[in-house]
Amino acid sequence: MTGPSVPLPDGGARPERETSPEAGHAVGDETRFTVAAPSGIGEISPGDDLARIVGDALDREGGLRDGDVVVVTSKVVSKAEGRVVAAADREQAITEETVRVVATRPSPGGVLRIVENRLGLVMAAAGVDASNTPEGTVLLLPVDPDASARALRAALAERFGVRVGVIVSDTAGRAWREGLTDLAIGVAGVLALDDLRGGVDSHGRELSVTVTAVADQVAAASELVRGKAAGRPVAVVRGLGRFVTDEDGPGARVLVRDSETDMFREGSAEAYARGVTAGQVTGREAIERFAREAGYADGYREGFAEGFREGTGTPQQG
Amino acid sequence: MTGPSVPLPDGGARPERETSPEAGHAVGDETRFTVAAPSGIGEISPGDDLARIVGDALDREGGLRDGDVVVVTSKVVSKAEGRVVAAADREQAITEETVRVVATRPSPGGVLRIVENRLGLVMAAAGVDASNTPEGTVLLLPVDPDASARALRAALAERFGVRVGVIVSDTAGRAWREGLTDLAIGVAGVLALDDLRGGVDSHGRELSVTVTAVADQVAAASELVRGKAAGRPVAVVRGLGRFVTDEDGPGARVLVRDSETDMFREGSAEAYARGVTAGQVTGREAIERFAREAGYADGYREGFAEGFREGTGTPQQG
Repeated sequence: MTGPSVPLPDGGARPERETSPEAGHAVGDETRFTVAAPSGIGEISPGDDLARIVGDALDREGGLRDGDVVVVTSKVVSKAEGRVVAAADREQAITEETVRVVATRPSPGGVLRIVENRLGLVMAAAGVDASNTPEGTVLLLPVDPDASARALRAALAERFGVRVGVIVSDTAGRAWREGLTDLAIGVAGVLALDDLRGGVDSHGRELSVTVTAVADQVAAASELVRGKAAGRPVAVVRGLGRFVTDEDGPGARVLVRDSETDMFREGSAEAYARGVTAGQVTGREAIERFAREAGYADGYREGFAEGFREGTGTPQQG
Repeated sequence: MTGPSVPLPDGGARPERETSPEAGHAVGDETRFTVAAPSGIGEISPGDDLARIVGDALDREGGLRDGDVVVVTSKVVSKAEGRVVAAADREQAITEETVRVVATRPSPGGVLRIVENRLGLVMAAAGVDASNTPEGTVLLLPVDPDASARALRAALAERFGVRVGVIVSDTAGRAWREGLTDLAIGVAGVLALDDLRGGVDSHGRELSVTVTAVADQVAAASELVRGKAAGRPVAVVRGLGRFVTDEDGPGARVLVRDSETDMFREGSAEAYARGVTAGQVTGREAIERFAREAGYADGYREGFAEGFREGTGTPQQG
């Protein structure tokens, strides 16, 4: 089924292995990969068969190979799935996508809301996107990006007769770092987290805390060829077949830190403000009792003196 | 100066451009890149000439090409620079690397400290690393990773006669996301942030907020071939020459969000606790004044009545 024309560039899965004479390491599968963005994927509209369109584009550049990972932007998935709403309803859409407000800040357009959305993702505007969308509209994230990834995976695997992984990526900001990076918000057939705990480091000591966010790193890599305005919403990553799994797997949710245990589950200002309120309430009773007693003592002393003067008819001083 | 043996794999900078017949796009420079980890870089020790060792390894695999980006782990930079301290002094070392404590949490080994270190990086244990280090030691981050990147860039550019970029990468955790990713902590000759503001999207609308953390995404990509225990501390990224700059540039500091404006500059629990204390203090004055005045009024009234009775000789009511 693979087309004849221009092949995607060679990655790790080359038939003959090259060896480095100096070190004796195989310079093959695990030490190189290629990321390429096929051309020919035009504007996507609601109802489009994304798997067919992506498959056609891949076919024209040599098809897929076993172990390839296809990364597709959430934007084209959303467009194909008709997740378009009128721009006038943007604020309402953000509210509806929001599970929990994490932080807010005034912005030129109103209030920037960083929220946890229904996918568990902490994102500005809940991931509702107003760039690269038809005029007058905004895009919601796919209803279930893992399901979208699974469907695309199944269709591409069948068309090309190979085992591939699929990642749906989206762009997000980060705490502590400037600039946006792409993240995996939908995953099928890719080891999203590579848990190296129990392995050993190069000194034979157990690696105790190293769990690598493979799918996020693949999504980030794919952004470098897709760019933002280039109209290339798909990237093929070749040479990372060791991260491609037989099963679809648990999806992108494993990449979401449980908000209950997240040390940054809430903006600093928001947490502080909640603390101030709580502090005012919890301290209040003791402070009130103490101040009232002190005030009563002062009032009693002065009231007594004044009452006594009035009672004895002593003329007021002053 | 480039050696004859096994070439690094082809990336975007191929001499002949391939074109896709369907779309008319050039499938060349900007739509593909390759990441490869050269072999033959052994254990690095204090005082080693890292530029020579890395250069030798690259030479054996075909050298560098114009526009390549070399990513090297902070770990080997630190080792070469002798940033090794005894493991027994780890907690003290973390304290000394710390500019500001961001959050803490009890951990099996004591207290996990997430701090801003002297490089502005928010990291667990200030980036002090105990994995893949000689037994009984821990590694501090390089003193100045940007300077390390500049020195390596200059040496590699001279040796291979090409314009290259260099990134020093380190591994870090993230708010909201499980799993670690690699970040750029030292940058020379690479556009760390790609500021697309002022550009237009595919619908001709201005891209208002898109600034991409290119160097972080390149670092993340490089981790996928370097792995954690593989003993491959260097990756060559070929095909992203459009992000390589003539000048060394401002370094990795531009990727650090100013903590003053960071909405997550402090852990939620820490911010809340500060709020509670502040709430107890700031609420205190108003509550105190109010309670004192109320107590005074009550005290005065009762004191006056009692004083008046005493002054007039009226016998106390039983």
